[in-house]
Amino acid sequence: MSGNTFGVAFRVTTWGESHGRAVGCVVDSPPAGLELKEKDIQKELDRRKPGGRLSTKRRESDAVEILSGVFEGFTTGTPVSMLIWNKDARPEAYEPIKDLLRPGHADYTYLAKFGFRDWRGGGRSSARETVARVAAGAIAKKLLSLFGVEIVGFTREIAGVKCSIDVRELELSEVYKLAESNAVRCPDAEVAKVMEEKIVEAMGAGDSVGGVVEVIVRNAPAGIGEPVFDKLDARLAYAVMGVPAVKGVEIGSGFSAARKRGSENNDPIVLKDGKIGFEKNDAGGILGGISNGDDIVVRACVKPTPSVSIPQKTVNVREMRETEIVVKGRHDPCIVPRAVPVIEAMVALTVVDFMVLQGLIPRSLLQKRF
Amino acid sequence: MSGNTFGVAFRVTTWGESHGRAVGCVVDSPPAGLELKEKDIQKELDRRKPGGRLSTKRRESDAVEILSGVFEGFTTGTPVSMLIWNKDARPEAYEPIKDLLRPGHADYTYLAKFGFRDWRGGGRSSARETVARVAAGAIAKKLLSLFGVEIVGFTREIAGVKCSIDVRELELSEVYKLAESNAVRCPDAEVAKVMEEKIVEAMGAGDSVGGVVEVIVRNAPAGIGEPVFDKLDARLAYAVMGVPAVKGVEIGSGFSAARKRGSENNDPIVLKDGKIGFEKNDAGGILGGISNGDDIVVRACVKPTPSVSIPQKTVNVREMRETEIVVKGRHDPCIVPRAVPVIEAMVALTVVDFMVLQGLIPRSLLQKRF
Amino acid sequence: MSGNTFGVAFRVTTWGESHGRAVGCVVDSPPAGLELKEKDIQKELDRRKPGGRLSTKRRESDAVEILSGVFEGFTTGTPVSMLIWNKDARPEAYEPIKDLLRPGHADYTYLAKFGFRDWRGGGRSSARETVARVAAGAIAKKLLSLFGVEIVGFTREIAGVKCSIDVRELELSEVYKLAESNAVRCPDAEVAKVMEEKIVEAMGAGDSVGGVVEVIVRNAPAGIGEPVFDKLDARLAYAVMGVPAVKGVEIGSGFSAARKRGSENNDPIVLKDGKIGFEKNDAGGILGGISNGDDIVVRACVKPTPSVSIPQKTVNVREMRETEIVVKGRHDPCIVPRAVPVIEAMVALTVVDFMVLQGLIPRSLLQKRF
Amino acid sequence: MSGNTFGVAFRVTTWGESHGRAVGCVVDSPPAGLELKEKDIQKELDRRKPGGRLSTKRRESDAVEILSGVFEGFTTGTPVSMLIWNKDARPEAYEPIKDLLRPGHADYTYLAKFGFRDWRGGGRSSARETVARVAAGAIAKKLLSLFGVEIVGFTREIAGVKCSIDVRELELSEVYKLAESNAVRCPDAEVAKVMEEKIVEAMGAGDSVGGVVEVIVRNAPAGIGEPVFDKLDARLAYAVMGVPAVKGVEIGSGFSAARKRGSENNDPIVLKDGKIGFEKNDAGGILGGISNGDDIVVRACVKPTPSVSIPQKTVNVREMRETEIVVKGRHDPCIVPRAVPVIEAMVALTVVDFMVLQGLIPRSLLQKRF
Repeated sequence: MSGNTFGVAFRVTTWGESHGRAVGCVVDSPPAGLELKEKDIQKELDRRKPGGRLSTKRRESDAVEILSGVFEGFTTGTPVSMLIWNKDARPEAYEPIKDLLRPGHADYTYLAKFGFRDWRGGGRSSARETVARVAAGAIAKKLLSLFGVEIVGFTREIAGVKCSIDVRELELSEVYKLAESNAVRCPDAEVAKVMEEKIVEAMGAGDSVGGVVEVIVRNAPAGIGEPVFDKLDARLAYAVMGVPAVKGVEIGSGFSAARKRGSENNDPIVLKDGKIGFEKNDAGGILGGISNGDDIVVRACVKPTPSVSIPQKTVNVREMRETEIVVKGRHDPCIVPRAVPVIEAMVALTVVDFMVLQGLIPRSLLQKRF
Repeated sequence: MSGNTFGVAFRVTTWGESHGRAVGCVVDSPPAGLELKEKDIQKELDRRKPGGRLSTKRRESDAVEILSGVFEGFTTGTPVSMLIWNKDARPEAYEPIKDLLRPGHADYTYLAKFGFRDWRGGGRSSARETVARVAAGAIAKKLLSLFGVEIVGFTREIAGVKCSIDVRELELSEVYKLAESNAVRCPDAEVAKVMEEKIVEAMGAGDSVGGVVEVIVRNAPAGIGEPVFDKLDARLAYAVMGVPAVKGVEIGSGFSAARKRGSENNDPIVLKDGKIGFEKNDAGGILGGISNGDDIVVRACVKPTPSVSIPQKTVNVREMRETEIVVKGRHDPCIVPRAVPVIEAMVALTVVDFMVLQGLIPRSLLQKRF
Repeated sequence: MSGNTFGVAFRVTTWGESHGRAVGCVVDSPPAGLELKEKDIQKELDRRKPGGRLSTKRRESDAVEILSGVFEGFTTGTPVSMLIWNKDARPEAYEPIKDLLRPGHADYTYLAKFGFRDWRGGGRSSARETVARVAAGAIAKKLLSLFGVEIVGFTREIAGVKCSIDVRELELSEVYKLAESNAVRCPDAEVAKVMEEKIVEAMGAGDSVGGVVEVIVRNAPAGIGEPVFDKLDARLAYAVMGVPAVKGVEIGSGFSAARKRGSENNDPIVLKDGKIGFEKNDAGGILGGISNGDDIVVRACVKPTPSVSIPQKTVNVREMRETEIVVKGRHDPCIVPRAVPVIEAMVALTVVDFMVLQGLIPRSLLQKRF
Repeated sequence: MSGNTFGVAFRVTTWGESHGRAVGCVVDSPPAGLELKEKDIQKELDRRKPGGRLSTKRRESDAVEILSGVFEGFTTGTPVSMLIWNKDARPEAYEPIKDLLRPGHADYTYLAKFGFRDWRGGGRSSARETVARVAAGAIAKKLLSLFGVEIVGFTREIAGVKCSIDVRELELSEVYKLAESNAVRCPDAEVAKVMEEKIVEAMGAGDSVGGVVEVIVRNAPAGIGEPVFDKLDARLAYAVMGVPAVKGVEIGSGFSAARKRGSENNDPIVLKDGKIGFEKNDAGGILGGISNGDDIVVRACVKPTPSVSIPQKTVNVREMRETEIVVKGRHDPCIVPRAVPVIEAMVALTVVDFMVLQGLIPRSLLQKRF
């Protein structure tokens, strides 16, 4: 009865429904002395916000309000509560289909679990709840940046069109700039165009497409992760698989490792400037569930948006009879680009949690005044 | 400092090292009144046990002892402690390489985390710790079977050789029988032979191969899973990614969903005998992080065993100089078949935990006597 | 870094500071189908609200807003977020003493922990945060009442004046009515008058007094509590000792048991209407950490309010020199009566959590509609 | 279904029954590099072991075996599993009363919870399970001692006879020596004699007596504790109230604070050697749930042993009829002295957990070797 809290030592609890009054979260708690303003959060929320021709027509300013835990511009070490009012909720749009189960959505499963369902745009099961994750993740990212840890995500694939960029050779700030410069968040501008075309094509057919998001964590210290169950990769898989529409997660060479030999998949260990390093990074920065200091590489498969206007078979649960459904209204024909900041946020929350557990983030970022 | 406990309401804590005195676990706690004998556990341990020409030469009887929580043949509702003595530990075999970091292993990361390392076969990072997971999973499976829930795993792929069997059309008992009838645990006997050849070929080259394990959960009730973070798929990903050598996890159509359209990936909803059902199962039994009553389908990529006798670059950490390593000794050239019962166990522990949280498993399986 | 969540299966996370924008909580989550209105919450908040001549002059309407988790008047099974705006915050009142450590308060310890301190009325350490506890507790109490469980608290002692009422002989509704009918929440009207006099007397001297609160849980089922660590009494002690100003907790005969013999302290076991019962209740309804079906009896010692206008020795932390402090302003000369609903709330949250863990509260209170 | 784990960042999970094969625990996990031998544990177990004329006649060597987590004499940072075989179990002694509920014991409540009961000496509800707590606490104490933190407990009161020693004026090593020098663990030898007489007198009458244990933590750093729920005092209350037979817990001035005025109960704040200090310690070392650097003072009321040979009313649950019971056999007429090391252990486990959470104990006590 309590699956809405993420993290062990750095925790976020989220709340809110798609067409309720607001969504929000409580972050318990950033260390004291972190400079934090609403614009630090807003910056990330704006990346997730709908907009542009490839996105839902729902218009949300997604303006965040910090309600607690910050005093004189700094965190106090107590819970940071954040709230985002829902401004453009239109529950009435869902009334005509409130008894129909939308295929690929959680309508049936929420009903099976609770015997009662907020049918307004999926209620809690809507990806709108990810606003709160991004808000919490913004704090995690800001905190990590103080320790030199960078986290950048981008679109690796959409509708079968792949981007083959080798991130290991680039500055992450460059990858970020490239990815943020187009509507699909693909760092290869040429590939991005083809992806956009694929999305437009699917939209025209009343259909949707999926893809793959990749997130890189650079400069995470070696040694984070808590085997045997709370391994870094295990918790990343948990964090990312819990993002709406994600159906698969892989680390480093991932599923391709199934087709490699050991001698090929192992990363040779070498000295770099007198420190342990790796010639390549098939491990994706994690060995035995603990970071090895190299880039942490996480990829997630995002399924095509289940809301499509092509008629689909379904059941009317009030009358318990088979029927058809056409899901109109406001939704993204491809959720992949907007999933990027969400998955980044979940990765950031995971990494910061383990850094706290490893004792690498102090309870106060300030010098004590006595 | 405490990543060795799995589960929320049905918990297992494991302990033990590869070449220490013993490995074991505490299961806190099965409901009272479950009939439980050591042979119920032994049966599953025997499936994981090494043996045969494709496996490590370490010989362990893996005989389990139940030390608590069972009285007059029934669980009492208190913790069940289980212990398996290590009988064939040979720590001395690792002495010559104790200062060398084995590529693909956790040698470096444990050192980075703890500054100190049990070099005897990887210590805690060895897959030997999975004995304890299988022991705990055996209780979970027995308990689930009382509620009609079946869990069966098998090898879907090894060294690029795939088994294309459609499990949805078969009894799981049949899948089990087929899979257990060969050394690679592949339910297609013809394909199994080719897989075996691939393994033998890699062995001959002093190398190793990887593959994909699939686990099916049948008859799990609709409604289990705890969004938004403790979704069923998120926790399954966590459970399975934490198994040694796993580098990727997917649910249902998984990564292939990235290349599908929404109209194609959605499962049409229909009535079957008056109940909600699905025409196909690309969702892998989970929608919005909650089970939908269909087969839960989990696949995991298992990397090739990192221990290979082909020389590899590495570093001697005592002298901090680059060198080469040849990992001899007792290890599996392909870990996939032995990973099957381990992943089954983790899936079972996940499912039973959520069934308890959903209120579907009572605290006592007995009628009260007063 | 995360001590602001209470509960295992029925969880509340609170946030907010005394003179910040608001206080609030997230309850994760009541079962689906609980009828819930803001007035259900408001009723309890009003009991905790300041007012009357014996209380702080701070004026807060403490109007609660439910922001999520309720749809069409019923809980949906998802998190209930509640918010109470701070209306009468006057942080400027604390500016003159912001560098002085108030004796008996948490000023020094927050500084020692975080190196930084919200000096506005104690910030997070203020008893104002208990508003959120009472809001969450109101849901717990409403839910428990559906299962017949009643929870009533009252003042057992103030400034050495004791109320000797034997609650076991009374209806709890009667105890409630008696206690709520006077300013000190003592069910004995005569004793209440003396208590009031003692408070007025201390006020006149610029001083404060303490006392003892007692909370009774009636009709809790036998069998709740999770030994060996999460015993019912252990978790009650945790819940209640965490309330501001509480310095001691006891169950049943409590500290007086230290002076009894076993034959005297044991409760004789008898049959009542064919069921197991007890002739008396020195156990306070708990044996071996599990409820026995009798009244659960919890008492808490509440220390005298540390804010007194009598000059006290302290230290100016900016200048690190000894000085004196006079704490003026708005505070209660005796916190005991207002602690009653807070302690009730904590007891209710504890009991409901254990009832969920015992499988006694279903995930949905509704009949499924399919 | 999982109340057998204590702690957040430094966790212990215990298992075992009074007359089962063994009792034990898993500590997850001490930091790497702690020198640890079985004799470090044994020393504490020997303090808890029965013996002498005032104690049960059960004879247990309570020899501990460390099964994991220690390599070459140092902890590795992985779980430490410890086991103590039950040598002198005599379950047959309980057979004649297996259908009778022992007053003051958990017989009825376990039956109510689980519908099934290990009647052999109370099974899991027996104080025998505290062996495992003491074993885990021994590690906590050894670890704390490296950071200068001392923990000493003693008997403050038995059968109404009080020891009025002022511990604040003494070295804790002196208190320890005095307390350990007599059978009742009272640091005042004269008072100890009277206590012993009271116990012998009760024994003679087939009865039992209770008392009060006090535990002091000295040199704990200011700043530990996690408000608002996981306050240091709240978690201490939880830890200690969960010890068998404890019915009340208080901190510092405790229940006597109810009768004091604020000006009297507040501890004046002063400078001592340029640091913040307190003129007295009514707070018991804790303000706002966070340590203030002064002695942490915890007192627990221990009820008289419920096993008495005086006939008591009870019920035969098989026949559901009222009857009488005489509890013979091996038990302590006063559990107070043997509760001392158990309560110390629980306090130590609590303090070490908070020190880890506060970032004061590193993951490795060794210098990294690379």
